[in-house]
Amino acid sequence: MKLIEYEDASAEVKAVYDDIMAKRKVDRVNNFWKALANDPVTMKRTWESLQQVMGAGELDPLVKELIYIAVSVTNGCEYCIASHGAAARNKGMSDAMFGELMAVVGMANETNRLVAGYRVPVDPQFQS
Amino acid sequence: MKLIEYEDASAEVKAVYDDIMAKRKVDRVNNFWKALANDPVTMKRTWESLQQVMGAGELDPLVKELIYIAVSVTNGCEYCIASHGAAARNKGMSDAMFGELMAVVGMANETNRLVAGYRVPVDPQFQS
Amino acid sequence: MKLIEYEDASAEVKAVYDDIMAKRKVDRVNNFWKALANDPVTMKRTWESLQQVMGAGELDPLVKELIYIAVSVTNGCEYCIASHGAAARNKGMSDAMFGELMAVVGMANETNRLVAGYRVPVDPQFQS
Amino acid sequence: MKLIEYEDASAEVKAVYDDIMAKRKVDRVNNFWKALANDPVTMKRTWESLQQVMGAGELDPLVKELIYIAVSVTNGCEYCIASHGAAARNKGMSDAMFGELMAVVGMANETNRLVAGYRVPVDPQFQS
Amino acid sequence: MKLIEYEDASAEVKAVYDDIMAKRKVDRVNNFWKALANDPVTMKRTWESLQQVMGAGELDPLVKELIYIAVSVTNGCEYCIASHGAAARNKGMSDAMFGELMAVVGMANETNRLVAGYRVPVDPQFQS
Amino acid sequence: MKLIEYEDASAEVKAVYDDIMAKRKVDRVNNFWKALANDPVTMKRTWESLQQVMGAGELDPLVKELIYIAVSVTNGCEYCIASHGAAARNKGMSDAMFGELMAVVGMANETNRLVAGYRVPVDPQFQS
Repeated sequence: MKLIEYEDASAEVKAVYDDIMAKRKVDRVNNFWKALANDPVTMKRTWESLQQVMGAGELDPLVKELIYIAVSVTNGCEYCIASHGAAARNKGMSDAMFGELMAVVGMANETNRLVAGYRVPVDPQFQS
Repeated sequence: MKLIEYEDASAEVKAVYDDIMAKRKVDRVNNFWKALANDPVTMKRTWESLQQVMGAGELDPLVKELIYIAVSVTNGCEYCIASHGAAARNKGMSDAMFGELMAVVGMANETNRLVAGYRVPVDPQFQS
Repeated sequence: MKLIEYEDASAEVKAVYDDIMAKRKVDRVNNFWKALANDPVTMKRTWESLQQVMGAGELDPLVKELIYIAVSVTNGCEYCIASHGAAARNKGMSDAMFGELMAVVGMANETNRLVAGYRVPVDPQFQS
Repeated sequence: MKLIEYEDASAEVKAVYDDIMAKRKVDRVNNFWKALANDPVTMKRTWESLQQVMGAGELDPLVKELIYIAVSVTNGCEYCIASHGAAARNKGMSDAMFGELMAVVGMANETNRLVAGYRVPVDPQFQS
Repeated sequence: MKLIEYEDASAEVKAVYDDIMAKRKVDRVNNFWKALANDPVTMKRTWESLQQVMGAGELDPLVKELIYIAVSVTNGCEYCIASHGAAARNKGMSDAMFGELMAVVGMANETNRLVAGYRVPVDPQFQS
Repeated sequence: MKLIEYEDASAEVKAVYDDIMAKRKVDRVNNFWKALANDPVTMKRTWESLQQVMGAGELDPLVKELIYIAVSVTNGCEYCIASHGAAARNKGMSDAMFGELMAVVGMANETNRLVAGYRVPVDPQFQS
């Protein structure tokens, strides 16, 4: 799939590009959006969903970025780690915070597997 | 592997059980530890590593639990979701926070795959 | 592992190369086969299995390619997405079909994780 | 998280339940929705997204269910395999089709890993 | 899918059951085969492939079982961990060997994620 | 994160670098360590854990490397496959052994998914 640049985009896609640039206060969109623009319906839905999900709520937007990175590292998505790593930096993630994030992600991946291998039964108090 | 109860444990394992119960202020250990007790070396190392990783630092212990859950959900580890869900509740996770956590985890898993499928190249500004 | 070119291949490997080229009506084999040629036994078994699995049956060969891509995207296998994306194009996959494929793959990855996180019990009518 | 039954649901949640039951022509909703009802915002977004994604388009709704199952099997989501397996059956999936689906999913998971292990470079003609 | 018992199986399936029981010197087959029997073509291919792959070669059959378990733990396949765990025990896996296997599997899952998160570039000497 | 070269490292990091080079009898450390050096606490813990886990025990160090590769291939970690592939070669892995390793890893990934898709129940004799 090719990346769709602003000048080659349909009016529908341009409207999403404009909204992204306005709300994020940037003057261009990332490759993720230029790729998704090949399917304007999914692009629009994804943009709307991300705004609903990643904004401030009970959890801080920075915490949400850390969670996003934790998932992306576990899935091995290099693009996502790079782009949300930058987003997290913009929202205040320090080197030390990143180090702690990685330490937790690493340990969780390790213990998740230990649990599977030892076939640990859920304790009665944790039963749903 | 069988779960090793306190009364059946070696002195080495009992010492770890005692330390877990003392530091967590509980009167028994979870099945995870009773299973790991089959390999005292890994058990001891894991307990020491978890204390180093999950304690207070630049990130709040609750935030670390949320990150832990995000990984465990992505890996589909039911035991880990259940036990760290309980730990997160103990550290202050509300229903609303859990809902937001799940929303971010869901979206990240979705967009991680969109990125892979569209083979989105890393933007120059995100290159390492 | 090095890629084994036709001229450097053993008779056993050449026979598989010839069969692939004849059945696919192409004049060279992909890197996948040149890599697998390092282990002729696995190469031969894989080629025979793929013919059995990917050919026409109750499911259309194009539908099988879409399923293949869905798995490859979920596993993050760039090579597989690229090569089977091309195969699917050859069998009739349009841009719109690819967009819908990605939308389903994205949603399934999202809802798979929501199910795990909320620990949703299987409904009685879906019990095996 | 508890499952929220219709009679205990808020008006907002009831409206989604009613819409699901009306559009799917069923008289109750699955546990997935009763669990997601703990977060009405995510529930509503997910229901709207699924309607957009899983309906008829360039791909047949049955093909979309097969793709959904392929992802769910790869992620090991038992609930999703069970519920979307039933949905696929309702849309015409035969035993033979299911068998072919599984054969493709199995082979794709095998060859995805062979590609990773042999570190197969993307062929020039498949470069994005 | 239902499990197909010997007495309900077709002649084609019975022949595979008989071969499994004869070669493994057991008087019944596991549920894996009874489930796969729903698709005799895949069942036969899988049985033939497993014999080719899991038998003695440059690697010891026990080592192959350990590798199988390592994959199954990483994928979180409880059935596979249970059945190949038993197979490994039959081939000589001790408690201590299982403990070391799990320790390696856990560490590899941890460091795999650290590598992803830190986006570690492949060293020149490891370039393919 | 940048790679931290020896001459730019803190005394704490240099001590770990020195220990790695001395014990592995090499004159430089891999990029993995140069990246982890951004978080000296995690770096030190990981180095100590790896020594405990990967050394000789009931399992041969080469077998441990094979297990490590099996996990890394399943997770799609290119760096880990490359670096531990080299380590395994140093410990005696032949081309034929690598081929057999990949064949097992491929089959396990395939059958893990068949088990999930067919929802195979654990046989009574394998119940924990």
